[in-house]
Amino acid sequence: MAPDAATLTGGSLLLAWQLKDKTVLIVGGGDVASGRIESVLVADARIILISPCAGLHPLTKNFIDTSDRITYHDRTFAGPDDLEGVDMVLTAVDDVEKSREICALCRKRKIPVNVADIPPSCDFYFGSQIRSGPLQIMISTNGQSPKLANLIRRRIETSLPEGVGEAIEKVGTLRCKLRERAPGVGGELGKRRMRWMVDVCTSWEMEDLAMLDDEMMAKLLNDGWEHNRVPKPQEISSKHKRARAVTAIKLSSGAWMPSMAGFLAGVACTALAFRLAQRA
Amino acid sequence: MAPDAATLTGGSLLLAWQLKDKTVLIVGGGDVASGRIESVLVADARIILISPCAGLHPLTKNFIDTSDRITYHDRTFAGPDDLEGVDMVLTAVDDVEKSREICALCRKRKIPVNVADIPPSCDFYFGSQIRSGPLQIMISTNGQSPKLANLIRRRIETSLPEGVGEAIEKVGTLRCKLRERAPGVGGELGKRRMRWMVDVCTSWEMEDLAMLDDEMMAKLLNDGWEHNRVPKPQEISSKHKRARAVTAIKLSSGAWMPSMAGFLAGVACTALAFRLAQRA
Repeated sequence: MAPDAATLTGGSLLLAWQLKDKTVLIVGGGDVASGRIESVLVADARIILISPCAGLHPLTKNFIDTSDRITYHDRTFAGPDDLEGVDMVLTAVDDVEKSREICALCRKRKIPVNVADIPPSCDFYFGSQIRSGPLQIMISTNGQSPKLANLIRRRIETSLPEGVGEAIEKVGTLRCKLRERAPGVGGELGKRRMRWMVDVCTSWEMEDLAMLDDEMMAKLLNDGWEHNRVPKPQEISSKHKRARAVTAIKLSSGAWMPSMAGFLAGVACTALAFRLAQRA
Repeated sequence: MAPDAATLTGGSLLLAWQLKDKTVLIVGGGDVASGRIESVLVADARIILISPCAGLHPLTKNFIDTSDRITYHDRTFAGPDDLEGVDMVLTAVDDVEKSREICALCRKRKIPVNVADIPPSCDFYFGSQIRSGPLQIMISTNGQSPKLANLIRRRIETSLPEGVGEAIEKVGTLRCKLRERAPGVGGELGKRRMRWMVDVCTSWEMEDLAMLDDEMMAKLLNDGWEHNRVPKPQEISSKHKRARAVTAIKLSSGAWMPSMAGFLAGVACTALAFRLAQRA
């Protein structure tokens, strides 16, 4: 059904911004800045960090010491020259005037900017995030309730299958191997490749995908792709058989308890009834 | 524990881009473009849509007909003039040459751009998304497996509590009312306000938060905030009592089945045992 255009409002455009080989200027080195540094490092960017060393959070210090992608300047923001060659600016300082000044300089140069705690000075916001290998999830309540965003994040974390990050990584590798084996862009082959990958993803559990290694991938491609079918995990490796058995035991260990308690109650009640009947 | 900087790699920077009162140029009107239009409308932007009408997807046509935020041009992209006053560009056309040309023009003007299906021509990617009122969730596998992103999206959708969008909306309204009642930025009052809101969010269920109306919010502020406590949902309204009862019935209707089956089995076995014993 076509969505009603009038109801489409009040949100943001959620994006996965690409920062590989880009330079991000971070002004400030406190608690908030340390979180920004982590997010930006994940995205493979270089960082220029400007903050007097007296105000550095221990996590920020640790990042400066351990990452070769951070260029650190022990001083405050000095002016427009600090924006030279910069692709994005994030500020997290307690100086509202300075923050607004930096924002104005960025806007003039069309550099995307986020000023912590001053929404009108932000081209974009951050949300509550989950990361597991190549999997990234962002939860945004569009400023309505950061606390609920956090509670929802935790709920989602527990709902994700174990090894989901590994599963995605392995499927990414399998896709590459398949493309090497059956190269070419688009056309009938491209469609068949996509269909087969979708079939693998939908017929295997995440836990099974996460266990794929090079040998198993080769077997999956030989026995599966080459014969236009998707073998079961158990056909590919004995590891899967064991994993299944463990899962089955785990599952049943919880599931039989109410039935067993009911059974014992049934035994007790019936025995009591018979005893009473015998005495009568 | 401090994260190891070396493991922070291979991801994107997930963002909630702000587009209120901004102009987004969308080139193309097919299936992919119609999805882009929906995402951009949600973010409160104006859209300039350029696409020959012969290639319009029915959903795109419907958006053009029903939204007053779309300016439609029945033609192909004409050149640099089309980028005048534009804050973001999204293209989804089958012409690789034209797409690359548009991307180059955008890069020169520092306009963020996404070219569907040509990753090197993208400043950002889109992910699998969930929207429920002010709640927006994005799932990205960083290009490793769109299919798994989709499966994870569906799993998350079913794990979200009912009425989560309404709950966030109501909490946002409650926050505004609280700020009207106890105004001021920062300081002790600001902290107390934040603590109280966190307490409400953590001690009430989402389903209860979703049911808040103006009258109940007033009672919650009068009986709660003013006395520095968080009343239970049942103290605020009889609606909540009813909702609880329904939930309890729903829950129990499933949960007693294994116990009952066990009980009946226990009765049957014991009765049989007694009968056999009596005969012997």
